[in-house]
Amino acid sequence: ADNVDEMPRKKVKLAPPPFVHEHEQVASGPPQVVEFEMTIQEKVWEVDDEGTVTHAMTYDGSVPGPMMVVHEGDYVELTLINPESNELLHNIDFHASTGALGGGALTEVAPGEQCVLRFKATRPGTYVYHCAPGGSMIPWHVVSGMSGTIMILPRDGLKDEKGNPLRYDRVFNIGENDFYIPRDENGEYKTYETVSESFSDQIETMRGLIPTHVVFNGKKGALTGENALKAKVGETVLFVHSQANRDTRPHLIGGHGDYVWEAGSFNNVPDRDLETWFIRGGSAGAALYTFLQPGVYAYVNHNLIEAVELGATAHVLVDGE
Amino acid sequence: ADNVDEMPRKKVKLAPPPFVHEHEQVASGPPQVVEFEMTIQEKVWEVDDEGTVTHAMTYDGSVPGPMMVVHEGDYVELTLINPESNELLHNIDFHASTGALGGGALTEVAPGEQCVLRFKATRPGTYVYHCAPGGSMIPWHVVSGMSGTIMILPRDGLKDEKGNPLRYDRVFNIGENDFYIPRDENGEYKTYETVSESFSDQIETMRGLIPTHVVFNGKKGALTGENALKAKVGETVLFVHSQANRDTRPHLIGGHGDYVWEAGSFNNVPDRDLETWFIRGGSAGAALYTFLQPGVYAYVNHNLIEAVELGATAHVLVDGE
Amino acid sequence: ADNVDEMPRKKVKLAPPPFVHEHEQVASGPPQVVEFEMTIQEKVWEVDDEGTVTHAMTYDGSVPGPMMVVHEGDYVELTLINPESNELLHNIDFHASTGALGGGALTEVAPGEQCVLRFKATRPGTYVYHCAPGGSMIPWHVVSGMSGTIMILPRDGLKDEKGNPLRYDRVFNIGENDFYIPRDENGEYKTYETVSESFSDQIETMRGLIPTHVVFNGKKGALTGENALKAKVGETVLFVHSQANRDTRPHLIGGHGDYVWEAGSFNNVPDRDLETWFIRGGSAGAALYTFLQPGVYAYVNHNLIEAVELGATAHVLVDGE
Ligand SMILES: [Cu+2]
Ligand SMILES: [Cu+2]
Ligand SMILES: [Cu+2]
Ligand SMILES: [Cu+2]
Ligand SMILES: [Cu+2]
Ligand SMILES: [Cu+2]
Ligand code: NA
Ligand code: NA
Ligand code: NA
Ligand code: NA
Ligand code: NA
Ligand code: NA
Ligand SMILES: [Zn+2]
Ligand SMILES: [Zn+2]
Ligand SMILES: [Zn+2]
Ligand SMILES: [Zn+2]
Ligand SMILES: [Zn+2]
Ligand SMILES: [Zn+2]
Ligand SMILES: [Zn+2]
Ligand SMILES: [Zn+2]
Ligand SMILES: [Zn+2]
Repeated sequence: ADNVDEMPRKKVKLAPPPFVHEHEQVASGPPQVVEFEMTIQEKVWEVDDEGTVTHAMTYDGSVPGPMMVVHEGDYVELTLINPESNELLHNIDFHASTGALGGGALTEVAPGEQCVLRFKATRPGTYVYHCAPGGSMIPWHVVSGMSGTIMILPRDGLKDEKGNPLRYDRVFNIGENDFYIPRDENGEYKTYETVSESFSDQIETMRGLIPTHVVFNGKKGALTGENALKAKVGETVLFVHSQANRDTRPHLIGGHGDYVWEAGSFNNVPDRDLETWFIRGGSAGAALYTFLQPGVYAYVNHNLIEAVELGATAHVLVDGE
Repeated sequence: ADNVDEMPRKKVKLAPPPFVHEHEQVASGPPQVVEFEMTIQEKVWEVDDEGTVTHAMTYDGSVPGPMMVVHEGDYVELTLINPESNELLHNIDFHASTGALGGGALTEVAPGEQCVLRFKATRPGTYVYHCAPGGSMIPWHVVSGMSGTIMILPRDGLKDEKGNPLRYDRVFNIGENDFYIPRDENGEYKTYETVSESFSDQIETMRGLIPTHVVFNGKKGALTGENALKAKVGETVLFVHSQANRDTRPHLIGGHGDYVWEAGSFNNVPDRDLETWFIRGGSAGAALYTFLQPGVYAYVNHNLIEAVELGATAHVLVDGE
Repeated sequence: ADNVDEMPRKKVKLAPPPFVHEHEQVASGPPQVVEFEMTIQEKVWEVDDEGTVTHAMTYDGSVPGPMMVVHEGDYVELTLINPESNELLHNIDFHASTGALGGGALTEVAPGEQCVLRFKATRPGTYVYHCAPGGSMIPWHVVSGMSGTIMILPRDGLKDEKGNPLRYDRVFNIGENDFYIPRDENGEYKTYETVSESFSDQIETMRGLIPTHVVFNGKKGALTGENALKAKVGETVLFVHSQANRDTRPHLIGGHGDYVWEAGSFNNVPDRDLETWFIRGGSAGAALYTFLQPGVYAYVNHNLIEAVELGATAHVLVDGE
């Protein structure tokens, strides 16, 4: 067993999505304890470009929450803060963690409380984390925005099917979220004074299983226009895509998945040359692509109705020749 | 060709799900004819904990039907009985079988009839069986409960990606079923005197593609509370998950899929370390996990709305230290 | 770089689905420029056997469009014609192509225009092509029928997991399409004078994400009865299945997927012995099966409601002993 108290420690400042905090792809030292901190924020949230709002629940203020990156064998030590100003109890379940409901049983924090969760990163891959405070609160908190991804890299980095190293120049944290905004009898989206008031209507809408919005990074247009992703010709980009609740099928218009870990585990041989890949609801996968040509690329959920009508479209601007 | 009349025979008594009849993981002898018997039961069936009922159609009285286990090279010999007391004609289509519509063309039995189907188990894996009596009867019988799994083990048992043996201490038969219970104008679930009376309303509800209930083993709560699955720390459990109609994405909260045959064929290398796996509608897959810690684990369809609101949640109680 | 002007050229006449133009499985010569031509046809289209019509948009008059077959290293040179008699602007996005939105940015043709797109086939596999003229036009044109498949064979043909050659005797082009036909207040399907008139109602129906029809090759029954697929005992058939928008799960009742490239890339090891395979919305996959017994086989989307009630059923008549 590890003597965790003797291990080196590193404090990491998380970056807001679609960006990811600085990290080594190949670990230069021994396993360490990596310290993260996230503050839960409940807030009024616009989901589209037409003023439709909901009461979002967020890790650190963003949908998805920030991505954490560690190496296999490291310990994750997360401080989770639920400020007094929030209304609801929350927690965190890491799919990467083992036992205790993924940490959910150890991290329930009421408004005004905080807690520390520590677990060993034993399986390399991209894994979802999300809030799971029991019963109907689970799907409600998740579709209200409370999910994100941890990426656990092999200590010696990513590899192709022959064991040759794969490296990326950029990594993007893309979280897809399905919102279920209730409508009134005229078909207009309803608003609620408080998050608690929205509960019963939202649950009823959720039971129909058809979202009103399917968006990347919390909002239709969060990754287009001024907020488009950027890369350069010749660069290799890792697209990490999480969906904590509902299946999706990312596709890069004009590009491909050169190497795809569809279910996210880096212990599996990556698939080559995919046109479209499949992210199971409740998982995060990763796709590596080297841009060969300049221009605008669209990155979409290739249910094209969900992409265009419900919002699941991002753009990648690729500079160069 | 095999001389089937000369082969050894074994009669197996099927076990009700989530349990599975006793069987060898590695075959100790030559191929044999394995005899099974199932009686079709149409019955009034409660699908949730609120008294909602439908007219279920079942193999041997359970949803899913009991799991059959044989080895590659064995012959399956099933006696299928449709008692006089039933209203409807039924049959059985084995995805593991070849030709004759998977056996469906050879097994149509009206109430009061029975038949015997024999086929050779040529492909190792977990395969769905289901009723398929033609036209609208096919989806109707399936979503009314008539499906199950046969597991065809390699004669020398399960293996990892290097050919090393994999063994399990327990195996669970988990069948996920989507029910489409019609509602009246007040949103209350309707009841029907006879199964035939429910047909046209059910088909209309089914055409909307949104189930009212998504449950494991026939009923919300069939695998929780007193009926929770049980295991011990250190034990390796094989979760076999079938869904005869609709896609699903099993996830073990607090655990993982150490080895996963997502599409069910044991002729493929298993995936490692999955957070969530994907069962295509009309298939059965298998996931192997060794429990490392005691406690309560939830096994869910990780569309969390389907898990919590529509019913697709099981619990695993793991004893030990 | 290739000197394309010096390369040999071949003009191919496309075949209507489910058939595929004649082609070599193993390339007998060096890479060439393969010339194809397609004419876009907007036309009134019956989607079922009950007289339900929509304004379809088609490549070359069929849904799906015809399949193109080339070899890795070949150049595709497509002439795309939009006749004056059409109402709408169209284009073509090849998932197999790189940059320029898969060709979409280079191929916008108004009624009365035509264009030529040339790209190098660099990745072997089955890839979707579809119309993508921007915004809501994208999903609308796609669900109105504008998609198809290109198959890029390795120069030395298909191979199993050990590199041994795999050959087929027949190949079928199966395109699954989800239609969203608006209904009036009595639940009757609405009709529209022109394709443009149907736009806003169709988009509203599409936003609900539940199709009214899910069909193979454009119409319920397009591949049954007189139009059933045909094969012989002992023949190996390659089923190429595309769905440009919505996930599906093909299954061959009475048969199997002996070798399946689920996501379509021939650079991946095929899966063996699948009962049901999964085609991500926005992709084309391929399944190889050798028929062992004569009889009628049903090839379905194994969401059995979609297969039987919404139309996604084909038949394969297999002759022999
Ligand atoms: Cu929360
Ligand atoms: Cu989870
Ligand atoms: Cu039946
Ligand atoms: Cu079936
Ligand atoms: Cu068009
Ligand atoms: Cu596309
Ligand atoms: Na887990
Ligand atoms: Na993952
Ligand atoms: Na089959
Ligand atoms: Na299977
Ligand atoms: Na692409
Ligand atoms: Na493909
Ligand atoms: Zn590290
Ligand atoms: Zn929460
Ligand atoms: Zn609020
Ligand atoms: Zn046996
Ligand atoms: Zn039946
Ligand atoms: Zn009854
Ligand atoms: Zn060629
Ligand atoms: Zn078009
Ligand atoms: Zn028209």
